[in-house]
Amino acid sequence: MRYELYYWPMIQGRGEFVRLALEEAGANYRDVARIDGIDAMTKLLDARQGLPPFAPPFLKAGTLVIGQTANILFYLGARHGLAPKTEAGRLKLNDLQLTIADLVAEVHDTHHPIGTSLYYEDQKKPAKLRTAEFWNERVPKFLGYFERLLKASGGAYVTGRKLTYVDLSLFQIVEGLRYAFPKRMRKFERDIPGVNGLHDRIAERPNIKAYLGSDRHIPFNEDGIFRRYKALDK
Amino acid sequence: MRYELYYWPMIQGRGEFVRLALEEAGANYRDVARIDGIDAMTKLLDARQGLPPFAPPFLKAGTLVIGQTANILFYLGARHGLAPKTEAGRLKLNDLQLTIADLVAEVHDTHHPIGTSLYYEDQKKPAKLRTAEFWNERVPKFLGYFERLLKASGGAYVTGRKLTYVDLSLFQIVEGLRYAFPKRMRKFERDIPGVNGLHDRIAERPNIKAYLGSDRHIPFNEDGIFRRYKALDK
Repeated sequence: MRYELYYWPMIQGRGEFVRLALEEAGANYRDVARIDGIDAMTKLLDARQGLPPFAPPFLKAGTLVIGQTANILFYLGARHGLAPKTEAGRLKLNDLQLTIADLVAEVHDTHHPIGTSLYYEDQKKPAKLRTAEFWNERVPKFLGYFERLLKASGGAYVTGRKLTYVDLSLFQIVEGLRYAFPKRMRKFERDIPGVNGLHDRIAERPNIKAYLGSDRHIPFNEDGIFRRYKALDK
Repeated sequence: MRYELYYWPMIQGRGEFVRLALEEAGANYRDVARIDGIDAMTKLLDARQGLPPFAPPFLKAGTLVIGQTANILFYLGARHGLAPKTEAGRLKLNDLQLTIADLVAEVHDTHHPIGTSLYYEDQKKPAKLRTAEFWNERVPKFLGYFERLLKASGGAYVTGRKLTYVDLSLFQIVEGLRYAFPKRMRKFERDIPGVNGLHDRIAERPNIKAYLGSDRHIPFNEDGIFRRYKALDK
């Protein structure tokens, strides 16, 4: 199966969680908007017929068109050994991925608490307040939870001895927080040695390492979900 | 199977999407925190062993403990005829439910754009700005999308001729927006006759009608996701 991934070509964004799974799996995929241009994506979103996806990322897999990051990973995980085989295991993994999705939405809102139709520069003051709340309340709750899961898992990965797509997504969370909030994250990281260790092991996996060093991997920037704004990192 | 639903006992909140599915299905369930008190829930969340859920709602089904609203519905939908039987159909439905989950998070942020550790009264100004953005940009995008799906579905429901849990959730969205923003919603509803019609058909289904008239159904209030604040409804 050759997959087609549709996502904004200039950012890691939510698409990165899918890219990491595809790369780890060594899957055959085309990052369509990066190769063929953004119009190849927007013409599908604007289709007036049938059930177009609501928003990127979405994945074409044969005749399937799958939207929503966690849903794409649910599909890919089962096919590429990145999820447990039992229903109970898959539901648990989906639960954890949706929790990461909630965290990602909150990361985005640190720089856009009022809305995406305004620039960051037009919502700097509420962004500062929201970011303080995010680091005081939310990061400890979310990453503390995954730290606990790792300690209790009985293996090197969140759900045990086998790598899953949730581990890859947690790697991306650490990457992103380190990029966007280097000072805050350096301080906070002391509390999550398990999550940090997981991050480092993922970074050394051959397929991930090759991907991160390739030009398929888009550097972080201030158009994505994780943005580095000095005013928010202190 | 007798389910146990765990959710805050004083609000509809995210639990309501699960309650509606359980009620429509005529499932045997215990709304644990409402019947046995909130400690019956918090002691599970605080468990130091194993993999406790991150947050309510979660559902106990035999030995399974399933967290995240969309994940619970994914599980229930397959067992109670509230989802298609094919994998493609179930993935599409999950995609739509996750889109509704995104909308629900944005509803919450209209009154809490800075964070949940502060009262609404302490974030009234950003709440006004966020609410304006929500109604100008987000409601038309989300509900316009479901309106299109309904038009294209070829049946009375979002995905066709059979009721799914997404239809029940869309009913709750309309209920909630009408409660929280009566003026704004009255005006906007003209643009979504399909969604409104769906809402009215769901309200007349015998199990839903009986549930809404029962004391199992918690009235809307200003502790839930949909809150009526005069300053935000103009």
